This record gives sequence, C-alpha cells and structure tokens, in this order.
Amino acid sequence: MYMAKVIGSVVSTQKDPSLVGRKLMIVQPVNSDGQAVRHQEVAADSVGAGVGEYVLLVRGAGARRANRNEEATRDVNDCSIVGIIDRFDK
Amino acid sequence: MYMAKVIGSVVSTQKDPSLVGRKLMIVQPVNSDGQAVRHQEVAADSVGAGVGEYVLLVRGAGARRANRNEEATRDVNDCSIVGIIDRFDK
Amino acid sequence: MYMAKVIGSVVSTQKDPSLVGRKLMIVQPVNSDGQAVRHQEVAADSVGAGVGEYVLLVRGAGARRANRNEEATRDVNDCSIVGIIDRFDK
Amino acid sequence: MYMAKVIGSVVSTQKDPSLVGRKLMIVQPVNSDGQAVRHQEVAADSVGAGVGEYVLLVRGAGARRANRNEEATRDVNDCSIVGIIDRFDK
Amino acid sequence: MYMAKVIGSVVSTQKDPSLVGRKLMIVQPVNSDGQAVRHQEVAADSVGAGVGEYVLLVRGAGARRANRNEEATRDVNDCSIVGIIDRFDK
Repeated sequence: MYMAKVIGSVVSTQKDPSLVGRKLMIVQPVNSDGQAVRHQEVAADSVGAGVGEYVLLVRGAGARRANRNEEATRDVNDCSIVGIIDRFDK
Repeated sequence: MYMAKVIGSVVSTQKDPSLVGRKLMIVQPVNSDGQAVRHQEVAADSVGAGVGEYVLLVRGAGARRANRNEEATRDVNDCSIVGIIDRFDK
Repeated sequence: MYMAKVIGSVVSTQKDPSLVGRKLMIVQPVNSDGQAVRHQEVAADSVGAGVGEYVLLVRGAGARRANRNEEATRDVNDCSIVGIIDRFDK
Repeated sequence: MYMAKVIGSVVSTQKDPSLVGRKLMIVQPVNSDGQAVRHQEVAADSVGAGVGEYVLLVRGAGARRANRNEEATRDVNDCSIVGIIDRFDK
Repeated sequence: MYMAKVIGSVVSTQKDPSLVGRKLMIVQPVNSDGQAVRHQEVAADSVGAGVGEYVLLVRGAGARRANRNEEATRDVNDCSIVGIIDRFDK
C-alpha cells in the first residue's frame, strides 16, 4: 500500500461504463513526513476521502476488491483509496 | 490509474492476433498540470481518444477488462485508455 | 521480494472492512547493507514484526495469500510483511 | 505496452521447463524517438522479431497469453514481444 | 524477465510457512554488460543458482508457477530465479 495526499479530482464524461458515477481523485504519493514522492495518480475513492487528506492506496486486483460490484460492472479500475490516515506513528 | 496525453500511434503489421484491428496509441504520462512524467507507453484505445487529448490509463488485468471480447480473443494487452479527461479540478 | 526496515505504523479509523484489526506498518525498502532505497510503503504485518526490524515484503496477489482469511474478507491489501530477516549472508 | 528495441538474446541451459526451446531476447525499452529509457529486460519472442527491430512488449499475465501453450507448460514467463513496430505515427 | 547477479542470501527464522526450506537469494538486477541497475531484491531459487552467477528473474504470478507446490503451500512468493544465464549474445 502507498501513502498519498488527495489533491483534486478529474472530470471525465467519456469513459468506461464501470467508472460512471465514481469519484476519481488525483492523489500525490507521499512518505510518512508528508513529502511528495514519485508522481501523481488517479484513484477511485471508496471511503469518502476529501481534498487535503492523507490516504492509503492499493493497486491492481486489490483495488477492484474495494468495489463491491466489481464483477457485475466488470470494473477496469486499478487504483483505489482504501483508508483515510489519521496519523503516522513513528 | 494514470493521467496521460495521447501523442501518436504505432503501426504494426506483424502482431499477436488479439491486437489486430485495434488502435494502439502512444501515450505520455503527465501530472495534473500537464507536465510529462516517466516515459511513453502504448495503450489500446477503447473510448475514441484522439492525438492531443488527456486520458486515463489502466494497466494489467484491468486493461483487458476494457475489451469486451477479452476472453474470446485471449487478449495480451496490458494497458488501456479508459476515459477522456475533460478537466483537472484542483 | 523486497528487503525493508519497519519504521512505524499508520493509524486509520475509516478504512476498507478487510483492513480492520490489522497492523499496517510503514516500511522503508533497503538494500542488503541496510541503506534506504526507493520510497516508503505501508505493509500488513503477518509475522509480528516490530519497529526497527528488517523484513521481507511481497506485493500483489502474493501479499493477500499471507492472509489466511483472504477470500472470506475480500482482502484489498497489496503488500505484506512475510518474514523477519535475521541476517544478510554475503 | 512498452516500445523496445531488440539488442540480443540470452543463452541459458539450466532453466524452468516452460522456457525450454523459446527465444529469450534482450530488449531495451525506448520512447517513440528510439531513445533508450529505463533498463534492459528479457522478453520471450512470439512474433519472430530480430535484433535491431522495434517491438511492442507486454508484461505480466498478458505476456503468458501470447504463449498458446501457457497452461499446459505452466509458463513462468512475465514479458513477451507481441508485435513488430513498422513505424511511429506522430 | 530481468537479468540479475546473485550476491548472497537472507536468513529468516520467522516467516510465512510457504517460504520454509526455500533458498532466498539476494539478487542485484543488471544489464547485459553486467552493470548494476535499479535496486537489490530477494528471489526464491528454483534452479540451483549460486552466488556470483547471472540469472533470469520473473515477478508476480509467474514467480509462483516456478514452484510446483504453489497451490498446496499457498505460496506468497512474488520473485523467482527461473534460469542461469550462460552468456549474453549481442
């Protein structure tokens, strides 16, 4: 899993049917000091995360499991927000 | 998912049967400011994206789900364009 | 598999049901000299690793196999600690 | 998918049974200007690509689908050449 | 697949049951000139590779297929040595 900060969202009208009606957030991966690492990605939100929050991301098949209608919708998504980070304990 | 800009296409005569008749676009991953990040890839287009447009990419098994004939054609593809980005909200 | 050092944990109240009750450790990938490489990740612990220990990480579907209730909980996790490294033999 | 240039092959006598009799090409990922990006990999050839040619690569499960005997041989391969690139249209 | 050089092994007493009794080698990815690229990983050996040898690595599901008892042991491994490289032909 990866730590990331939610920085916005993308608006897309023409897209795969499995993505319709879902929140597609722009996320910036960070380390546990909140510093940006790597590059921005887009993640489907399944926990109600808002802009400015730190979140947990999963990729690949795990990301589709966060969608309870995965098989019914033939979900194409490969990145999901699966948790909101309250704090980093170090 | 990744944000990318469509910059062209590849022409390939000799290829896996599952790729015949599909549009194989050259895409440059970008961040939400449109700046190029990482390196170019090739993605199968399933939403009618044109050169110069910003798009959403998925990789791996999710990319094959964007192809409704995935199992019938034994699709080898591992990267698909699954949405056209109208704008970045930040 | 990757070598990493456990440096802390994340606290998350709002998260996918499959992650409830599990230890989510912040890990820093390292090489066999203990030097940090790449960027921090978050891994579910299945072997009782503590802060400061060197561990083995797996990603993707392998990470979910480390969870014996994977299918029952519809586990979304994509990174697990699967071993504590006693020493590097070189 | 990735663009790459075929630069040679590896000779391996002792290997997994699923790799016996297959051409294992050394490939250098490139962008659409033919410039080297990232690092060399080894890909199983399924389209008859020769040294010096530009090719399309797929990774992961897609790479095994390019092998029509995937399940019978319990194929371990994770990277295949699935097309020869005639030209880049930009 | 990736080219790598075997540089040692890790000793781990406390680990996932599927890793017990297996050789866990520290490998340094290399290019076809033998130069180190990227960062060290740990791979399960299935071909009897020794320290100092050049080898072929696979990742992900392919890595588990190199283990003939994959399902029985519920293998968590995500990286395997699947061949010893005799030479690079360029």
